[in-house]
Parts: sequence; structure tokens; C-alpha cells
Amino acid sequence: MIIDIHGHYTTAPKALETWRNRQVAAIGSPSEQPKVAELNISDDELRESIEQNQLRLMRERGLDLTIFSPRASFMAHHVGDFAVSSTWAAVCNALCHRVHQLFPDHFVPAAMLPQSPGVDIATCIPELVRCVEEYGSVAINLNPDPSGGHWTSPPLSDRYWYPIYEKMVEYDIPAMIHVSTSCNACFHTTGAHYLNADTTAFMQCLTSDLFRAFPTLRFVIPHGGGAVPYHWGRFRGLAQELKKPLLKDHLLNNVFFDTCVYHQPGIDLLTGVIPVDNILFASEMIGAVRGIDPETGHHYDDTKRYIDASSLDAGARHKIYEGNARRVYPRLDAQLKAKGL
Amino acid sequence: MIIDIHGHYTTAPKALETWRNRQVAAIGSPSEQPKVAELNISDDELRESIEQNQLRLMRERGLDLTIFSPRASFMAHHVGDFAVSSTWAAVCNALCHRVHQLFPDHFVPAAMLPQSPGVDIATCIPELVRCVEEYGSVAINLNPDPSGGHWTSPPLSDRYWYPIYEKMVEYDIPAMIHVSTSCNACFHTTGAHYLNADTTAFMQCLTSDLFRAFPTLRFVIPHGGGAVPYHWGRFRGLAQELKKPLLKDHLLNNVFFDTCVYHQPGIDLLTGVIPVDNILFASEMIGAVRGIDPETGHHYDDTKRYIDASSLDAGARHKIYEGNARRVYPRLDAQLKAKGL
Repeated sequence: MIIDIHGHYTTAPKALETWRNRQVAAIGSPSEQPKVAELNISDDELRESIEQNQLRLMRERGLDLTIFSPRASFMAHHVGDFAVSSTWAAVCNALCHRVHQLFPDHFVPAAMLPQSPGVDIATCIPELVRCVEEYGSVAINLNPDPSGGHWTSPPLSDRYWYPIYEKMVEYDIPAMIHVSTSCNACFHTTGAHYLNADTTAFMQCLTSDLFRAFPTLRFVIPHGGGAVPYHWGRFRGLAQELKKPLLKDHLLNNVFFDTCVYHQPGIDLLTGVIPVDNILFASEMIGAVRGIDPETGHHYDDTKRYIDASSLDAGARHKIYEGNARRVYPRLDAQLKAKGL
Repeated sequence: MIIDIHGHYTTAPKALETWRNRQVAAIGSPSEQPKVAELNISDDELRESIEQNQLRLMRERGLDLTIFSPRASFMAHHVGDFAVSSTWAAVCNALCHRVHQLFPDHFVPAAMLPQSPGVDIATCIPELVRCVEEYGSVAINLNPDPSGGHWTSPPLSDRYWYPIYEKMVEYDIPAMIHVSTSCNACFHTTGAHYLNADTTAFMQCLTSDLFRAFPTLRFVIPHGGGAVPYHWGRFRGLAQELKKPLLKDHLLNNVFFDTCVYHQPGIDLLTGVIPVDNILFASEMIGAVRGIDPETGHHYDDTKRYIDASSLDAGARHKIYEGNARRVYPRLDAQLKAKGL
């Protein structure tokens, strides 16, 4: 089985964006806020948006199942207050849940949280609980910078985040550390902010002893870990300067990287440098880079081709495609086992 | 000849830091500001600080010449106002000039600018002029985020920066795009902020048409280009989405990467992905990562070993070690030629 652990609902019917635009336009005017019930998207519309996009490409590429969460760039936790984020997260998670119900063999949800800058992270727990218990979510996306490129929240090692970690540990679910759109003109969202956040989050883990406090906490760093594997020697050396244990002991029981790296040399570096047990297959499809690479004639984000063309043996490939995902996402494993898979 | 284009004076005598601490302590009390003349460092002290550190390692590693600028993390452009930055830049540049005079065959200066957040960049021109005309500086370090991790300046493509670009073009000098210390708790200085800035700067160039406005402007992106070469497919794909030309035409006449990547797989990726004409040898020694890699028994930052162990042919290696530096830093080339080199 091939599991893509990083897919977002980037192709939701237009009505979702229209509803969101109304919600944002009404910020500051509670009476004008659109009602959740005013968002009408039929099952057929959902089916079409998936079948013609993600599912079509999954079938073409031979992917079986995607861990599917709301569109990352649309989370926009910096917009409005907690009430705005809360309603928006509920709407987005409900849609991913419906996609899961329509395509139970192909999409398993991960939850977006109703984060809001400066607001107690514990306020996100009810939505997390709903997603895990009612929707079958197997993971969350955790935004280390809900300000959208101003980085006003404390580092991930700070006690600010502990309430959500306690709930993650209780449910045994991992978090993908994933920022949203940048509202800082310095940072292009998918070309800078996403990759920077990946590197930043990893370094926040490296400089701290977070995983001593939470030995079973698990973070997935997306986009191939940002700059981390390319600079693995730098990070090993920095850990040494900081008198931390070797990275394999300090971080690699808890930190995992996905394979959203859109060319062969990048995947070869990732799989050559990072232990195979810490690499999870993903493509973030349909996402930031939708085109066809003129150098290969294939989609940039068809990351399965790079894994297949790498020098990994069958055992390593199985771990990356399936085994590691079942280990890092035990609730996914349980769902699959319940189906006899 | 082997030219290291990225060295900072990280080993300056303690008196420099003491003077700086006095300067910072007196911010807001102009009458208590230490005088520049109160900083007394003898030639012998300078000699010792270099001979026992950078020059010793250069000799051990077989490096001939370093382009040498003030300590990047100490620039701290966010501290104080323009007057503070101006005096501090003048002090630091004067020291690098003295190192150049003491070791003219081994150190050639690059200038730190007296940037200050929100202040017109044209205020940096007098120091730039002094450095180029009096000190023989062959480049500048340009800080894209003088706020120190809050990213409050406009992107490098903004007209805000044009006055400095015009002067760079006039003098035909490149800028290394290099941030300073992070005062944002989210960003570890050398493990996150530096690499993020590299990626951010590259993406600012990619999304803009800066090099159409300044066809001869040249940027060196340090630390192996941050996350860029590892994600070269992503950046090619993003350029395509944005209807920009191929990166080789859009950016690679103007953007260059150094080799401050501290392990063999990273250097192999860099040299495999980026055209050899765009790679400049550097180690940023003595810098963030000073230890010995237990996996190799050699210093992490002994980047010459990685270049030597790569599959590059002699012609490519010559470009990386010397040829490209002479082309990207024409004032260095002129100085070398004047010596018959």
C-alpha cells in the first residue's frame, strides 16, 4: 500500500472560498457573520472536486491513500479572532470528514486547529477532540506561527504549547508542523515561509529538550524538512556545540520528514542522509507546484517517481510508503487493521 | 589559488566586544557613548587573533585568501539607531582593513553596512564608499532583515534598496545577502535565521524582476543557498507557475551560492544541481560550527575536503576555488592582477 501522508483539500468547491470571504468581510460585525448552514456543498460537488483532481492523480501515480487535511494556506490563523478561526476550522474539518466518508478507502482526515495568535492553545482542544473522536482524524496540523510570517508565538519548546502536546500524547497522534499563508511581504508563502518554518521548527526542537518532557510526542516536518537534510552536517555540528546528544538520539525518535521534495537529487539526498525510519512518503498534491517539469516530462510533485528511481531497496521503500506511516500514525494503522489491511 | 569568499572576523580581540557592550549600554545617553579612540587594539593583538585562528586553519587546509568581513552575528543592526550602527560599522570595517594591511596576501575586506531598521538605505553609502575607496573592500554584506528576525524591511526587490544597488553597480561589487543575530526567540541565529534568510532572499529575487532593472547586480547567497539547491525542483516549478523564465535565465546571471554546507552529501547535491559557474568556494571559518565531525574526524567546516572528494573535474574545481570569485568580485581580480597573480 502507498500512503501519502501530506495532502490538503486545495480543490474544495468555490462555495467554500466564497463563504470564507463573507466571513472575513464580516469581521468586526458579528451580526453579519455568515451562518455555517449557509455553506451548501453537495456530496456530488465534493465527489467531483476529488475525483477529477487528487483521486485522478492518485490513481495515475499508484497511490492508495492520502492523509487529508484542510488547505494549509487557507488556514490563515492570523485573520480575525479565535471565534473566526474556530468556525473556519470547524467548517474545513467537516468538509475533510465528508471527503473521508465519500472515499473511505482513499482519504483519512487530519485536523486543522482553530489557532489564533496570542490565544491559549488549549482553546484548540475541543476541535481536536471532535476531529479525533467523531471524524476519525489520525493527526493534526500544528501552525508554529499563527501570525502568518511575523513569528510572534513562542517556540514549540515553550510551555505555551504543552496543553496540545498532552492531548496529542493521550490520543497518540502526531502533528505535522505546517504554517499557513504569509502576510509578511518578505516571505513568499510556498517558496519561503513554508520551508523556513520547517527549518525553524526543527531547530526549536534541537535547541530544547522537548522530547525529554514528551518522549512519545511526534512531529512530522513537511517539505522534506525544509533546509534540514541538506544541512545535516551543520545541524549535527550545532547539536555538538550545544552539548546535545547525537541527533539520532536527541530528535529522531520523535521527528520525521516527508518526501515533498520535487526533484531527484533532493530525494536522493534526503534518503541518503536521513535514516529510512524517519522518512514518510508524501507529495502535497495538489499543491504549490502543479506543473510538469520540462527536464523529466512528469509532474514536479510526482514524488513517487523519485522514490522509485532512488537506490533504496524494497524494504526501505516499504517503510517509506507504508510501514513508517502506520508506526507514526497509529490511529491510521488501527483503521486499516480494522478493515483487514 | 584557493579563495574563500566567506570569512568573518569572529575572533577579534575581546576589547572589541567590551567596547561594543559600552556602546550598547549607553544607548539613549549620547554623552556616555564611548569614543572610537577609546578602542585600543594593537597590531600584535590583531596579528595573534588571526595567526592563531583563521590563518592557522587556512594554512592547514591549503586556503590562500579569504574575503573577510566583520562578524555577521555582531552586526546587530536592530540595536540602537543609525548613529549607533554607523559608528559600530566604521569600527568593525576599520579592523578588517587593518587585518588586510597586516596580511595583504591572505585577507581582502568586504564591508559591513551601517543599516538600521526603517532608515533610508542611502545612509549606508558613505561607509560603502569609504570601504571601497580607502580600504579596498571588494564586496558588501547586505542584511535583508536589519530588524533581526522580525522582517520589517521591504523585500530586496523593493525600490527601498535601489540606492545601494546603484552604488554596487557603479563600483561593480557584489553583495553577500547575510542577516545578523536573531532577536526573535523563534529563530536560532545560525541554525534557522541564517538559512531562512538565504531561502527568503532567493525567493524575493525569483518573484521579482530585480535583475531586469539591474542586469549587472550580483548577489551571493551564503550557506549553500539555504534550502534552495535541495529544493531546486520546487523553485523551478514555482518560477514556472509564476510565468517567469527558466531560473538559469531569470536568476543565474546574478545569483551565486557559496559552499558553506558542512557535509559531503550536501556539497554533492549543491555541485550536482547548481551550474558550476554559480558556485563559489567558502567555509565561513571560524564560524557557527567549529567542532570536528565524529563521522569523518575532520572539522565540519573544512569544506575544501568535500569539494576535493566530489566528482567535479579539475576545470570545475578551479572555477569554484578561484575563477568564479575573480569574475563575481572584479575588484578582487584587479587587486590580484596588480600583484601579478
